[in-house]
Amino acid sequence: MDKKFVIGVDMGGTNTVYGLVNRRGEIIAHRSFPTASEPTAEAFASRLGENIKALISDCNADDAVVGIGVGAPCANYFTGEIEAATDLPWPSPIPLGRLLSEATGLPVKMSNDANAAAIGEMSYGAARGLRDFIVITLGTGVGSGIVCNGQILNGNRSFGGELGHVKAWTVEDRPCGCGRKDCLQTYCSAKGVVTTARKLMAKHPESRLCLLKEEQLTSKLIAEAANAGDETAKEVFRFTGEVLGEACAHFAAFSDPEAIIIFGGVSRAGELLLAPLRESFDRNVLHLYRGHVTICTSELNEADAALLGASALGWEAEI
Amino acid sequence: MDKKFVIGVDMGGTNTVYGLVNRRGEIIAHRSFPTASEPTAEAFASRLGENIKALISDCNADDAVVGIGVGAPCANYFTGEIEAATDLPWPSPIPLGRLLSEATGLPVKMSNDANAAAIGEMSYGAARGLRDFIVITLGTGVGSGIVCNGQILNGNRSFGGELGHVKAWTVEDRPCGCGRKDCLQTYCSAKGVVTTARKLMAKHPESRLCLLKEEQLTSKLIAEAANAGDETAKEVFRFTGEVLGEACAHFAAFSDPEAIIIFGGVSRAGELLLAPLRESFDRNVLHLYRGHVTICTSELNEADAALLGASALGWEAEI
Repeated sequence: MDKKFVIGVDMGGTNTVYGLVNRRGEIIAHRSFPTASEPTAEAFASRLGENIKALISDCNADDAVVGIGVGAPCANYFTGEIEAATDLPWPSPIPLGRLLSEATGLPVKMSNDANAAAIGEMSYGAARGLRDFIVITLGTGVGSGIVCNGQILNGNRSFGGELGHVKAWTVEDRPCGCGRKDCLQTYCSAKGVVTTARKLMAKHPESRLCLLKEEQLTSKLIAEAANAGDETAKEVFRFTGEVLGEACAHFAAFSDPEAIIIFGGVSRAGELLLAPLRESFDRNVLHLYRGHVTICTSELNEADAALLGASALGWEAEI
Repeated sequence: MDKKFVIGVDMGGTNTVYGLVNRRGEIIAHRSFPTASEPTAEAFASRLGENIKALISDCNADDAVVGIGVGAPCANYFTGEIEAATDLPWPSPIPLGRLLSEATGLPVKMSNDANAAAIGEMSYGAARGLRDFIVITLGTGVGSGIVCNGQILNGNRSFGGELGHVKAWTVEDRPCGCGRKDCLQTYCSAKGVVTTARKLMAKHPESRLCLLKEEQLTSKLIAEAANAGDETAKEVFRFTGEVLGEACAHFAAFSDPEAIIIFGGVSRAGELLLAPLRESFDRNVLHLYRGHVTICTSELNEADAALLGASALGWEAEI
């Protein structure tokens, strides 16, 4: 039996989760603490390092851990720095890779959360054995991890795969946080889904969604209403799938993927989203790709996925 | 001095050009014959093989040639077959890689012409030393070769980089040969440029372009008129650059390239095209990429580029 392990770290704006993971993608143990608990990034890295060493020791895994993988927003794969992260309490850039390596004596690889998700799918999930695929994460924003020839497409400056900021082929002049308009994430993020719902609710006062207070409206509740038969709520996901399917059709012409894997909160809507997405993909895609791209949702347990994805980077650190 | 050589083959619908190329990208000798001169693909491959052997012998390069690289429309990198080529006189698929290897005893690598152009730029041209870039070829159609992490993005089935069939972010309902509408090549190919000119000429009878017979109108003549100061002709390239620049802005979000290299007949318009292209790129691109992507034209002599690009594949065959 292979007794090697990696540490995965999922660093979010609220909590930092870290865990010990084996070759099969099983989480042996995991713990967490509030990300903003320390006054400086250096103190955070020091605490994280100490906590990781304690976890390794408690699991009797000393000398069996080959590396640490960290998934964090705006993490640069090449520099190991967190750049321009707006939801962390310390100034950027943060050289977390170096700090954590110094604190633990272990090699550290870092990547942004969407790329970590893609590596996780390749290592343990729906993309096992695939060499060309795209993971699209539908969460607060829309992110993506693109794998070509078995490698994450990092690009020149580690900004490869910002597909959430490709302009959608639907034009409603929706403003995006980046300052531009109609970015894919203004339609397909959790927030984009809510925006679509509000537009449709204005035309359909009979929808049960109209019984909710405005601030209560979430993509999760919209999915529940759709599953309960609400036509307006169904239409929200039909529209979202249509927009995402057309975008995916054009993404196929870029990288000729074997699969496009949809991940994150909005993807929990399942077939409500996937059926119109696949239909739109087939209708809009160049004939060369039609019938050759599997569109599916993640196979990773969502609660574990961020940690597993990050941990998969740890195996790269080994080399 | 390194005495190794490769053979490059540029197989077009009309002529097949083949030549002996050294490590520095110098064409030692080249010859050609009409592609449609043989009744079957097998006979063509046999003749090409004999011709290549004669060229090698005449150059006293026996035992110094390490491989053959072939650039051909619809060539599949993985299978070495030409698939669904509409402008060749024989039925597809054509297993040219295998046939040519049997005829010459040399390893053969094949790729489509746009990918060959990208490899040529990386080996001998504007992309020397770059690991992440995109070549966009503006010819009869619009093709592309995408290089990520120093490798051609072939994708799952060798159909990576069909950027000419990504839908433009300009919508005029222009029909494309693929059966869809508004593909980038309906705007930015030589034919797309002529279509744009016709539309503008209808509004500007004072343009000198209106003195040409309809069938005489070419992107080359439009560029000449623009260089001579014709405002309508200038507007044709301004519009083309605008459309291509916006597309390139979104392509950047896919692969975070260091450079986008414009190649092929329409690119001969030079700054007429490049100035509005760069302006549109900067205006439409996500802030992460602004100022970090060089947009330029090919540094390869256009007459030699197809042969050189194909020959560069020959070095891969060596391994």
